[in-house]
Amino acid sequence: MTIDPNQFRDIDPGKRVLMGPGPSDVSARVLQALAAPCIGHLDPYFLEAMNQTQQLLRYLFQTENALTIPVSGTGSAGMETCFVNLVEPGDEVVVCVNGVFGTRMADIVGRLGGRLTRVDAPWGRAIDPQDVRQAIDGRNPKVLAVVHAETSTGVCQPLEDLAAVAKEAGALLLVDTVTSLGGMEVAVDRLGIDAVYSGTQKCLSCPPGLSPVSLSPAALEKLERRKTPVVSWYLDMGMVAQYWGSQRKYHHTAPINMVYALREALRMIAEEGLEARFARHQLNHRALVAGVEAMGLAMLVPEPERLPMLNAVCIPDGADDAKVRDALLRGFGIEIGGGLGDLAGKVWRVGIMGEASCRRNVVLFLATLETILKTQGVAVKPGATEAAANVYDDA
Amino acid sequence: MTIDPNQFRDIDPGKRVLMGPGPSDVSARVLQALAAPCIGHLDPYFLEAMNQTQQLLRYLFQTENALTIPVSGTGSAGMETCFVNLVEPGDEVVVCVNGVFGTRMADIVGRLGGRLTRVDAPWGRAIDPQDVRQAIDGRNPKVLAVVHAETSTGVCQPLEDLAAVAKEAGALLLVDTVTSLGGMEVAVDRLGIDAVYSGTQKCLSCPPGLSPVSLSPAALEKLERRKTPVVSWYLDMGMVAQYWGSQRKYHHTAPINMVYALREALRMIAEEGLEARFARHQLNHRALVAGVEAMGLAMLVPEPERLPMLNAVCIPDGADDAKVRDALLRGFGIEIGGGLGDLAGKVWRVGIMGEASCRRNVVLFLATLETILKTQGVAVKPGATEAAANVYDDA
Repeated sequence: MTIDPNQFRDIDPGKRVLMGPGPSDVSARVLQALAAPCIGHLDPYFLEAMNQTQQLLRYLFQTENALTIPVSGTGSAGMETCFVNLVEPGDEVVVCVNGVFGTRMADIVGRLGGRLTRVDAPWGRAIDPQDVRQAIDGRNPKVLAVVHAETSTGVCQPLEDLAAVAKEAGALLLVDTVTSLGGMEVAVDRLGIDAVYSGTQKCLSCPPGLSPVSLSPAALEKLERRKTPVVSWYLDMGMVAQYWGSQRKYHHTAPINMVYALREALRMIAEEGLEARFARHQLNHRALVAGVEAMGLAMLVPEPERLPMLNAVCIPDGADDAKVRDALLRGFGIEIGGGLGDLAGKVWRVGIMGEASCRRNVVLFLATLETILKTQGVAVKPGATEAAANVYDDA
Repeated sequence: MTIDPNQFRDIDPGKRVLMGPGPSDVSARVLQALAAPCIGHLDPYFLEAMNQTQQLLRYLFQTENALTIPVSGTGSAGMETCFVNLVEPGDEVVVCVNGVFGTRMADIVGRLGGRLTRVDAPWGRAIDPQDVRQAIDGRNPKVLAVVHAETSTGVCQPLEDLAAVAKEAGALLLVDTVTSLGGMEVAVDRLGIDAVYSGTQKCLSCPPGLSPVSLSPAALEKLERRKTPVVSWYLDMGMVAQYWGSQRKYHHTAPINMVYALREALRMIAEEGLEARFARHQLNHRALVAGVEAMGLAMLVPEPERLPMLNAVCIPDGADDAKVRDALLRGFGIEIGGGLGDLAGKVWRVGIMGEASCRRNVVLFLATLETILKTQGVAVKPGATEAAANVYDDA
């Protein structure tokens, strides 16, 4: 077998405006850190960079958890890490399902031989804590799992009440914060979250490839008391912790350059400050919604349950989902997401995450969508960008 | 919880010469590709980059296997991918163990509930195919697993005879090529390998973070006929294949920038050509060994079983393992590896992989090691660099 190397050109993707469900726009600073020279995974310089990354992650998660690390895979690897370490065959696990990612959690529990109890809510609505309380009644669940920010629907799940339910039941609280972390508060210690994971490519504005994970002392105790080995060697936190901890025992080669990039993205978050960052995401969300609604389009999720960083906009009658997204991407380099599962063809998912959460993107998106819909013969009301501008002026 | 962002500085690891067991030196071209703008994982430009990456990987593996992709994790994730997809609880699996990575394979088989048969050889020696044939006798193994290039010892495992044994037994042949791929021939189709994985940070000279994996049609058939679900959702090749194949069905967000980097590293391999690349690794290996032996030091592995890219050098009497490696790293920025497991304190592992496999590094290492050993009071013979030079002159 031979190959002609001249058929391949330099990587040159051009410039996009990433307003889909992730990845989000990555800053020049993070890309520059990513491209720093690769060094050994036991090099003293890298070990110090690991320590700093952990310190910055603890700040972002608002936790003192010692085991707070980036897992060497994307957000889904973080999900798998939490379940595979905390669930043994036969363990009762309650999973809240109101979108793709809750469904994925339930799938994983089944693969691990856990005894699954599902608590469902309609896609586009939050889980009712009373439903969870009822489902648990008479059971003894080891884990209660919930998605904080359902990327498939744009629903924000309030965690306070569920944390109380988990505590009452003596269950570990496992939370997916892939899309929320870095864009809204994820107060791990205050809420009493025991296992939490995220992704780098959403509100952290780092390329995809790592999954920040944090486990509480109670979660580590469950891990230590397991009767069966963790079925995944790669994600076995008992072993991975010995590399990230003071022992520095080799487990697998860390993704060096991705850790550089994550450290830089986290440093930028620390420079901005969590409160300012969350307020920025909230403001740009409110401006986007004002513009969308001024156009006459509807949001999928009722107002109190909306995420700031992921906005599910109902596709208006007469609009062709794929044709509109294609016009945005090919004509303007703007990426938004389509619907997943039951919501395919029904919603657009507009992300304003991390670096991409800015006034310029909001106005650009509104103006571009308005133009494209008009061009494609879909009736929209005027005044979208003005409505957004008013939100900014009032802020 | 607050944090002072001013305590963190720009990433600036300085320049190393990476001559350990990996990562190896990464070229400026690959780092530049890594830092290209991040785009969406369903963006037409990225989909085309994925196709090209697969095409280049097939060339490198010398295979027509459709399912030839980079798994979203490091080399160990590739190992786990192959076992978790091909081994069901109760399956008989034969694992050849002559170092750390064979031991890891055996560990994984146990976690998956496979019935393990180990075939051992001393660390530093290849597995005898006759031992495998004997161990299989009377059994019906589903998988025969072996490490092509044992990174912990520097042993090269000849694959021809083992491939014949696997064929006789009707077992799938599963091969670890983490350290060999890109530095010596890995002829997947010619040898009849059914499942193979590698890492990006060895002879591909790309940062760590992806694991090239290829599965044969027979392996896919075993996967399709499973009676139990693949225990890992993240590494379930039936689902991952639907994203890398023509369906483009979302599974998990691909590590976009790492795929850029891998594509560039593979493109550089295609430009050099496999034969020239393998000859380069062989030549630099011979020069290194000539220099090491001229110094009076011994190689761990007998000559016919040595890997070209990973050289285990016995630590001479009187030398302090850590002190010598520290002097190399702190004084000269040269990284080499220590021994693992039973070989800790007994060998140095000198990698000459990918970009790092060059005449300059060989001579630099020999001259530096000679100086350091002398400075630390260890008697070495003169003439190491001259011995290496003679090998180059004769080539």
